[in-house]
Amino acid sequence: MLLFGIITTVKIRIAENAGFCYGVKRAIKIADEALKKNEIIYSLGPIIHNPQVVGEYEKKGLKVVETIDEAKNAVLIRSHGIPPQVYEQISEKNLECIDATCPFVKEAQDYAKQLYEEGYFVVIVGDQNHPEVKAHIAYANYKAQVINSIQEAKNIEAQKIGVISQTTQSMDNFVSIVSEFVKKAKEIRIFNTICDATEKRQESAKELAKNSDLMIVIGGKNSANTRKLYEICLNFCKKVYHIETKEELKKEWFEGVENVGITAGASTPSWLIEDVIKAIEKIENDIY
Amino acid sequence: MLLFGIITTVKIRIAENAGFCYGVKRAIKIADEALKKNEIIYSLGPIIHNPQVVGEYEKKGLKVVETIDEAKNAVLIRSHGIPPQVYEQISEKNLECIDATCPFVKEAQDYAKQLYEEGYFVVIVGDQNHPEVKAHIAYANYKAQVINSIQEAKNIEAQKIGVISQTTQSMDNFVSIVSEFVKKAKEIRIFNTICDATEKRQESAKELAKNSDLMIVIGGKNSANTRKLYEICLNFCKKVYHIETKEELKKEWFEGVENVGITAGASTPSWLIEDVIKAIEKIENDIY
Repeated sequence: MLLFGIITTVKIRIAENAGFCYGVKRAIKIADEALKKNEIIYSLGPIIHNPQVVGEYEKKGLKVVETIDEAKNAVLIRSHGIPPQVYEQISEKNLECIDATCPFVKEAQDYAKQLYEEGYFVVIVGDQNHPEVKAHIAYANYKAQVINSIQEAKNIEAQKIGVISQTTQSMDNFVSIVSEFVKKAKEIRIFNTICDATEKRQESAKELAKNSDLMIVIGGKNSANTRKLYEICLNFCKKVYHIETKEELKKEWFEGVENVGITAGASTPSWLIEDVIKAIEKIENDIY
Repeated sequence: MLLFGIITTVKIRIAENAGFCYGVKRAIKIADEALKKNEIIYSLGPIIHNPQVVGEYEKKGLKVVETIDEAKNAVLIRSHGIPPQVYEQISEKNLECIDATCPFVKEAQDYAKQLYEEGYFVVIVGDQNHPEVKAHIAYANYKAQVINSIQEAKNIEAQKIGVISQTTQSMDNFVSIVSEFVKKAKEIRIFNTICDATEKRQESAKELAKNSDLMIVIGGKNSANTRKLYEICLNFCKKVYHIETKEELKKEWFEGVENVGITAGASTPSWLIEDVIKAIEKIENDIY
């Protein structure tokens, strides 16, 4: 920053736990292994919520399909998981099933099933349009209610409530919603299925945002957990931008900025983060 | 209140749901019925936490004892309940068991037992010295941990936690403590055993306290739920006094006061409340 002719160096710091989570790293590894044995694999939906990674894998032979009908030979189940009925379809079509469902998501699916079978009114805290949540609903025999706010929690009248969470939910929202149930229902059984990685990533982003003049959040615009990171940062830093790639960076964002913080969603590969850092360093050289 | 020679009348308002709860009314009724058939009955601990009522019943033949060894013929179990082992002692001594355990307390005992048997780390939110809680601990095979604050909740490291509450706990404290568990543990199963009556009594007391210059809380000094009412009122009203009987009222409390609010704990009989109101009216006549 130029101040009375004195040049101040700009600090770029990356939040701890930014980028790929365990489940995504694992899914990528499973896809890599499978692509050594199969020329083409059909991924049921994009392998992760990141267009750059999906584009790269498309070239390697991982074709994105929307339904089992479009798939041949081998199907990759991405980390988000699928409803039990889709496993049946894969089996009926005699397709090879390459299952990269995140083990933590699988655990949440099991809890959804258990809570439904044990007579609970199943509540899933999350985004009803997210593929992970859609699968959870299916495991609760399509009887689960998906909510995302205290207001929606207030509208639930059940007396025996079983609660799970989308793995990428924010802990604060989950706790607030559960508190509403505790006040009203007789029995509340909670499986905290929020992933540690998400929590740690959010916590680190929050801490970094507090001490940054500008926060850059990198990740797919369609990635729920990246959008959540963006929202969290907005609470603690005045200037926050959500980008997918370095091309979206704007020189004017960095004017008068001394501390730049960077974080990235669970589906953002490290090479994309590094690209952004290099681009910021270049912008800074241009400014100062 | 005397103001420029104008006499303002003082309003005395009684909080809704003040006084005896369902469990206490029921226990008193059971004792009355039993005293028609038995000249002397041994009450295991005072029938309710109110010295005036206990004194009255002592005259009717209800003798307070501390242990089964001191009892003969018939034993009254008060609304707080007793550990399962004490039922065995009563049975071994061939005493008649007059069981006035509050059905809501009984329900909480069943949950404590169930949670212990199903492998939960049992947490009871309440006062570890309260007889109700002591019985709950026994139903959880003496493996339950009693806590009363967020700090104590933070110290619990278990991953599968079953939570019940003393029936007279405040909802806010219960929710705060449960929230701590939701943040840390994998599975939390909560039976909200807070009694409706307590909640409603506390809510009414809070509303009245907000609109009163002075709050009088009537109930035994050894009554946990009365002390809790006193604390709640203190948060919303500057002048709050906890008394057992009209004799403790002081004239100076009422000077400059326009709105007097009255509430009473679960073990306070209506005649005691009426006595206090009459005494306050007398004091006011003296002042104005």
